[in-house]
Amino acid sequence: MSDLPFGHLALAEGEEFDAIRALLAVWGARATGIGDDAAVMDVPAHERLVVSTDASLEGVHFRREWLSPRQIGARATAAALSDLAAMAATPIGLLLALGLPDSWRAELAELAHGVGEMAAWACCPIVGGNVTRASELSLTITVLGSAAQPLSRDAARAGQALYVTGRLGGPGAALAAMLRHAVPDAAHLARFAQPRPRLDEARWLAARGARAAIDVSDGLAADAAHLASASGVALEVELAWIPCASGVDAERAIASGEEYELLVTFDEGSPPDVGAFEAEFSVPLTRIGRVVRGAGVTLARAGGRVDPPRGHDHLS
Amino acid sequence: MSDLPFGHLALAEGEEFDAIRALLAVWGARATGIGDDAAVMDVPAHERLVVSTDASLEGVHFRREWLSPRQIGARATAAALSDLAAMAATPIGLLLALGLPDSWRAELAELAHGVGEMAAWACCPIVGGNVTRASELSLTITVLGSAAQPLSRDAARAGQALYVTGRLGGPGAALAAMLRHAVPDAAHLARFAQPRPRLDEARWLAARGARAAIDVSDGLAADAAHLASASGVALEVELAWIPCASGVDAERAIASGEEYELLVTFDEGSPPDVGAFEAEFSVPLTRIGRVVRGAGVTLARAGGRVDPPRGHDHLS
Repeated sequence: MSDLPFGHLALAEGEEFDAIRALLAVWGARATGIGDDAAVMDVPAHERLVVSTDASLEGVHFRREWLSPRQIGARATAAALSDLAAMAATPIGLLLALGLPDSWRAELAELAHGVGEMAAWACCPIVGGNVTRASELSLTITVLGSAAQPLSRDAARAGQALYVTGRLGGPGAALAAMLRHAVPDAAHLARFAQPRPRLDEARWLAARGARAAIDVSDGLAADAAHLASASGVALEVELAWIPCASGVDAERAIASGEEYELLVTFDEGSPPDVGAFEAEFSVPLTRIGRVVRGAGVTLARAGGRVDPPRGHDHLS
Repeated sequence: MSDLPFGHLALAEGEEFDAIRALLAVWGARATGIGDDAAVMDVPAHERLVVSTDASLEGVHFRREWLSPRQIGARATAAALSDLAAMAATPIGLLLALGLPDSWRAELAELAHGVGEMAAWACCPIVGGNVTRASELSLTITVLGSAAQPLSRDAARAGQALYVTGRLGGPGAALAAMLRHAVPDAAHLARFAQPRPRLDEARWLAARGARAAIDVSDGLAADAAHLASASGVALEVELAWIPCASGVDAERAIASGEEYELLVTFDEGSPPDVGAFEAEFSVPLTRIGRVVRGAGVTLARAGGRVDPPRGHDHLS
């Protein structure tokens, strides 16, 4: 990894090398440039570097009984990659810093498989990492991407229309069920346990004139507020237009976090071809509102205004 | 930060924004490009991107009573930047993923000052981050740098000479004292608590023909073994030539970790001007051995061979 032997103070020498060997054995050719103090990479000519870091912790972002180790690895990687999707960037590398409790040591290979599978799915080489003994499991993933013209969340302007990818509410419904020790709907659980960052979808949207974008990690209502704040505009969202997961109402759908869908704006006069989008990706693209002058997010139903929801459930 | 609001599931909304505000208030202009899903940067034309991630955990890399919060922040940042020094790269950005226990919440500003001061010292903008509530303090720092021709640890060849920067042994002596609850020597403690990555020194060495390089994080003996292994060569180290901190013998000096000095090779016929180096940086540059055919590290004293030391002390 980038600092071989990585986690040099954290594990006794034998354990440390065992951990490294286990990761590299799982990742194979998906890990590149491993073995020096740092990885050396190239950003494609005429493109900008896009970089983000994201942490997933047991007890904060998930509970052990909810997810398999492989799902934990893949989900943490997907969450990090979703920040590249929000910028319409193409992944060029990721680094994993793993905090590994002794009680998780036996799951190291499965965690690595999860990270490796999502990295492979996104065509993203694993270029570095670090393993440290820790008291709780954590996966801190830094993603690097490139884009000629990255999308941003500060480019929404009055006169644009607001769109969202996918159907919302599944992760929130699954989380709510698991928190009350009920069995979640299988489709909802799949959306919670196996998110897919909208990388290809984001590039498609950017190539067709998307103006501003953000990924839906905190819930559509909250992320719409972040988009509005960053752009210095107001957003009007029509609740009746929200595309909802089966069995979920719009109020809950817009409070559901960790969706990893995209919220994007387009000029009113240049709307995206939603049919072509769905044909390409088998995922809906839905107009849910518009950008106006002002500040904040207004939720409307049949012309009337409703109160915004609270943020989605936290584990802690 | 790169994912505003960062640590979105980890802290209640008010706490989360408070943490962000506290960091940004401390960092001021040192934090750039904050506020979108990811940071957008440029790598200088004709240079390569160099990237590494490094974690510092309480109880693994330090104990709370040994260091001030400001030192903890600066030291974690220095350790990460040292991987860029090993590649002779110029820092262009860093991202901090902070795992913050409630018991450390009051120290957030001081931790941020430490990170910010070291970043400023290295002229490295802070481009992103993440804050998550955690049960133990952790700072996972990803550093980005650029270099036209990065140094690597796999370029040592028979016929080269081996050099090290600085004087070794201070961090190990301080750590040993603190582990036995003794008061460490002030100079040793300063080397442990306030390391300085050899960034300028590395570029100076690279510009003058350095062939292979590694930073001394695990102890000179261990890192020499990594260099030898990566390059497919053997290293002969003359113990009598090791530059030691005051009061430390060579055997202990070469087992002292977290030195963040540089171990570099030069062609025998093109040695660096050690006087000019010391005049420039007020740090010695010392020839300590040579590269030969074979494998592993041979320690010699007055022509005789001695056993290699064990790795340096681990906290866990």
